[in-house]
Amino acid sequence: MSAPSNNKGKFITLEGGEGVGKSTQLRLLASHMRGLGLEVVETREPGGTPGAEAIRALLLDGEADRWNPRAEALLFAAARSDHVERVIRPGLESGAWVLCDRYIDSTRAYQAGASGLADEDIMAAHRIGSQGLMPDRTLLLSLPLDIAAERAAARDAGHTDRFGARDMEFHSNVAAAFRSYAEAEPERFCTIDASADPESVSAQILESLADILP
Amino acid sequence: MSAPSNNKGKFITLEGGEGVGKSTQLRLLASHMRGLGLEVVETREPGGTPGAEAIRALLLDGEADRWNPRAEALLFAAARSDHVERVIRPGLESGAWVLCDRYIDSTRAYQAGASGLADEDIMAAHRIGSQGLMPDRTLLLSLPLDIAAERAAARDAGHTDRFGARDMEFHSNVAAAFRSYAEAEPERFCTIDASADPESVSAQILESLADILP
Repeated sequence: MSAPSNNKGKFITLEGGEGVGKSTQLRLLASHMRGLGLEVVETREPGGTPGAEAIRALLLDGEADRWNPRAEALLFAAARSDHVERVIRPGLESGAWVLCDRYIDSTRAYQAGASGLADEDIMAAHRIGSQGLMPDRTLLLSLPLDIAAERAAARDAGHTDRFGARDMEFHSNVAAAFRSYAEAEPERFCTIDASADPESVSAQILESLADILP
Repeated sequence: MSAPSNNKGKFITLEGGEGVGKSTQLRLLASHMRGLGLEVVETREPGGTPGAEAIRALLLDGEADRWNPRAEALLFAAARSDHVERVIRPGLESGAWVLCDRYIDSTRAYQAGASGLADEDIMAAHRIGSQGLMPDRTLLLSLPLDIAAERAAARDAGHTDRFGARDMEFHSNVAAAFRSYAEAEPERFCTIDASADPESVSAQILESLADILP
């Protein structure tokens, strides 16, 4: 039998640019965990609660310059505050494993890494909104940019939102920002090669979680 | 002729609880200033731009507990960021007098003074969103709570929003918070007795601005 600390839920986030397979991998991971008899909460950002979804709609619709990067960062932090309070913290407190598609590192990569805001401002907004709650483990799905762009284009079939519409240099800056966070926090991050088929990627993810899974 | 510094626009905010006459006084002040040949921008918060109005709708509609105080403070800061960037700063840079119905002190009074958030968190969100832009002068309209409540009730005729619906103790805390900010910053604040008729109140306001008006 596992040590008691392994039976309590943990907070796992999946991060990476568009088209790397985060939502597919989240579903496969959730299904595997349920097979182990674990309580699982699957959620995503921006969104995850009715209030946060309303903010998500404000964030994703409209022109690329609809919001300045500072307003955008505050809107993400407000949506996250609602999500953390109503879904993530209650899930963790009930002992569930909370799996979240994007979280604070996406805000950092898109707003600070690629849009020029200071990382300390993003983290300050996160402290105000969510008392700075950080994941126990972050899975960074990594894929060469041209493959990710092809996959995202196939998935979206012409329906790009304000973020998907940005250019290759922007996405390259996002990817570089994610890599730098992973290097700065090797205990929290596992970088996953997402170029293989979904089952192989899922196997890599399970291996990278072996130390915390019961 | 006035000194050149008096001919440049300044940023004036009107603050106070519901029913103290802020919007009436803002109109009278704007009209007087235009009579002096000044360029005037009249605006209000939350709102003042299409983006900020969309956030305002999220903030004012729905149940009293729709947003936790931390999410609420971030939403106000996001709306203000848009408003400052698109209306207030451009107005000031063009030399206009910008008159704003509610601004940062309302967020402080409602979210920190009366809802228990730390004032330093409100001010940190304001620095992130709007580089901490503060008014040159803040007019605090002050009225005994029972008279303000009667006026607000007559004005709203049963259409109260999430803020108007709060109880007397809440409004008393808001009023006490406003007073404490005015005491802490006597050079920025002028407290105006708003119990007289609108013309007398307007005359008081003009007198309190005599040192900065041309």
